Amino acid sequence: MEVCRTIESVRDMVGKARGEGKRIGLAPTMGALHIGHVSLLRRAAEECDFVVVSIFVNPTQFGPGEDFDNYPRPFDRDLDICRKSGVDIVFAPTAGIMYPDENLTWVEVEKLTEPLCGMSRTGHFRGVTTVCAKLFNIVLPDAAYFGLKDAQQAAVIKKMVADLNMALEIVVCPTVREANGLAVSSRNKYLSETQREEASKIYASLLKCEELIAGGETNSSKIVRQMREILDEIAGGEVEYVEIVDAGTLAKVETVKGSVLAAVALKLGRARLIDNIVCRIIQPEAQ
Amino acid sequence: MEVCRTIESVRDMVGKARGEGKRIGLAPTMGALHIGHVSLLRRAAEECDFVVVSIFVNPTQFGPGEDFDNYPRPFDRDLDICRKSGVDIVFAPTAGIMYPDENLTWVEVEKLTEPLCGMSRTGHFRGVTTVCAKLFNIVLPDAAYFGLKDAQQAAVIKKMVADLNMALEIVVCPTVREANGLAVSSRNKYLSETQREEASKIYASLLKCEELIAGGETNSSKIVRQMREILDEIAGGEVEYVEIVDAGTLAKVETVKGSVLAAVALKLGRARLIDNIVCRIIQPEAQ
Repeated sequence: MEVCRTIESVRDMVGKARGEGKRIGLAPTMGALHIGHVSLLRRAAEECDFVVVSIFVNPTQFGPGEDFDNYPRPFDRDLDICRKSGVDIVFAPTAGIMYPDENLTWVEVEKLTEPLCGMSRTGHFRGVTTVCAKLFNIVLPDAAYFGLKDAQQAAVIKKMVADLNMALEIVVCPTVREANGLAVSSRNKYLSETQREEASKIYASLLKCEELIAGGETNSSKIVRQMREILDEIAGGEVEYVEIVDAGTLAKVETVKGSVLAAVALKLGRARLIDNIVCRIIQPEAQ
Repeated sequence: MEVCRTIESVRDMVGKARGEGKRIGLAPTMGALHIGHVSLLRRAAEECDFVVVSIFVNPTQFGPGEDFDNYPRPFDRDLDICRKSGVDIVFAPTAGIMYPDENLTWVEVEKLTEPLCGMSRTGHFRGVTTVCAKLFNIVLPDAAYFGLKDAQQAAVIKKMVADLNMALEIVVCPTVREANGLAVSSRNKYLSETQREEASKIYASLLKCEELIAGGETNSSKIVRQMREILDEIAGGEVEYVEIVDAGTLAKVETVKGSVLAAVALKLGRARLIDNIVCRIIQPEAQ
């Protein structure tokens, strides 16, 4: 495994692999790798011949007052994980490499970025799409791997790739959970043991949603109310949103039909946690 | 020469050429090709082994009330010109091919798009950068060719390519002029014979600027005043802007130093004409 610090070196190495006819996979990460990331790396290693992982805590996707400075950066541990997961190149640039001059160019996706996390994290998705566009242009992968835990991010990136005719496939991998159901996230490090246990109620609220929909409930307000009852039990938790949206457009739905995404964001101690579940309902045909 | 109507077909053919180790050149155009375009195609054919020309009147770069509907589309004549200029592929998609779904993704360049044409043509550069990003992603050229007549466009696209780490070179070719000095443009078709003659005063005003700067004048306001005197003589002309800006940042300069761009936009009859000249001044060293 090679660690590349410059754009030229990663381009050279990937170019060689491409020249050998290898399929290139990229997993863009901010490091602090956990079993969720490992599932992406394994999937990439299964489907591709050459796997690139980028590790870059991207400043442009953090807002003022967010955790850019405190975001965990256990670099040597990350390299170990990559080595054991079949990674060929770790691309670990500095901010000066990624943004050498004043960055004036932004890739923005409208509409999909407005609800859910877009409501509170102004500019976040603009930072994500811009840095992903840069990474895609540097690596030119055949496929890039993202986690479904960040469902809105995955939808936004898929739309960017389609709209801008980027020649790669976006692969979205299932959310990996701890034994108690808590979605694995680098930000779980901010939680105490007790908070981690409390936070498992987020998944409980999503399972409640799934259960209600499976039972025929289609009224979003009613479902959200019951989810919120569970979330309100989280000691010290502060719900940012609980919403049921169309899984494609991310627009709020009043009546559940087709595929919906139930999504939750909640502040707990120093952490802002997000999670979601996709529920599909097959409507009985109107007679 | 092949005419490709779909993204898949142009990707296939360019992919084959790339596989043969050929250097790929792209000239993105809106058709209505003239000797200015021909100079781009010839330069591309000189520097590359495989030349792609896109012909696409891009709706997203026209504002309301602009000339999208009336923009000339002499397609068969364009193909003849391409054939004679060493072009390998003409990529001529419909709007439905380029924007199959609701387009939600925009590439925007800040600051450089605000002065000059950005003042009156809201959203124009956003449309240009977005469609160029799409074309670059479809063709993946080694070099793309633009004309210096659209100096602001060239600066904006260069910045986009640098900021987003697009792996291509932007080549900016000199403005081609009619015998009387008028910059060649598809929109000159909107002019009568008399207007065409009057419009030559635009270049006269730029030459006056060059002459003044060569003579040691560094006061932008004074230079602009003398340029405007010439432009005001254009019968039926309406000056939109006359400005002296830094050639790199496009910010207004009060005192000429280094490389400056003198830029003019003027409405004449049905046409909106732009032109510019780059002047370099070597400042005497302060003692």
